[in-house]
Amino acid sequence: MSHCVFCAIVAGEAESSLVYEDEHTIAFMDIRPFTPGHLLVVPRAHAANLAQLDSEDGARLFRVGQRAAAALRGSTVGAGGVNFFLADGVVAGQEVFHVHLHVVPRTAGDGFGLRGRPTAPPRPDLDYLAGSIRGRLGAADA
Amino acid sequence: MSHCVFCAIVAGEAESSLVYEDEHTIAFMDIRPFTPGHLLVVPRAHAANLAQLDSEDGARLFRVGQRAAAALRGSTVGAGGVNFFLADGVVAGQEVFHVHLHVVPRTAGDGFGLRGRPTAPPRPDLDYLAGSIRGRLGAADA
Ligand SMILES: [Zn+2]
Ligand SMILES: [Zn+2]
Repeated sequence: MSHCVFCAIVAGEAESSLVYEDEHTIAFMDIRPFTPGHLLVVPRAHAANLAQLDSEDGARLFRVGQRAAAALRGSTVGAGGVNFFLADGVVAGQEVFHVHLHVVPRTAGDGFGLRGRPTAPPRPDLDYLAGSIRGRLGAADA
Repeated sequence: MSHCVFCAIVAGEAESSLVYEDEHTIAFMDIRPFTPGHLLVVPRAHAANLAQLDSEDGARLFRVGQRAAAALRGSTVGAGGVNFFLADGVVAGQEVFHVHLHVVPRTAGDGFGLRGRPTAPPRPDLDYLAGSIRGRLGAADA
């Protein structure tokens, strides 16, 4: 593994504004926040992407994210809502190749959100894609 | 609980294009996809928001989402990357009040992404917010 900024934070070798830590997981403030209070939940063990991530470490990201969401509503941040966001792969916007869950507190008029335009495909198109995905999920069980 | 469209899908009383189901969790195609293959991972048990969600049901959303991300890359969808997204609260864009994790497959030039402008606050501001959030997280442990 080459230099990883999140591994450096985990090791205490790089500065961070720490919010939470336990045996498997840490959380700290994003230094490029979309909104005040935007934080990242990160597994201590390096995993470049979801394919490398231990599934229990993944489950822990959600658990800590859920607790952070509650804390953000009660803290100085005064969030009225929260978004979770995760980018897996360059084409998905991933920039640091150590898995991280964004927890973004929301207030009215903060300007954050999704970009894109939903479509309304006919049911047979949805069924076709579902069948293909289901087939791959089933294969993973075997 | 008043009528909930995801509870109706869980009960088999409303149509869906099913991708996955187990004892606790189901996944089906979003009928308003941002990209082809966009699916939702949903707990069977009704929870309007993260505050109501059983933490193990939350952990399961991530586990199934991670498996779905792998399946999307191998399926007809041919995803090159994946985003997870979750909206908790009206101000965060939540529209169906039964918790759901969006799994959005990505390909180059698909137009999907985040809207907003990151800032670069000074470290003392990040430390101040981190302290407030950490205090609330600690309180939750007690
Ligand atoms: Zn790392
Ligand atoms: Zn429901």
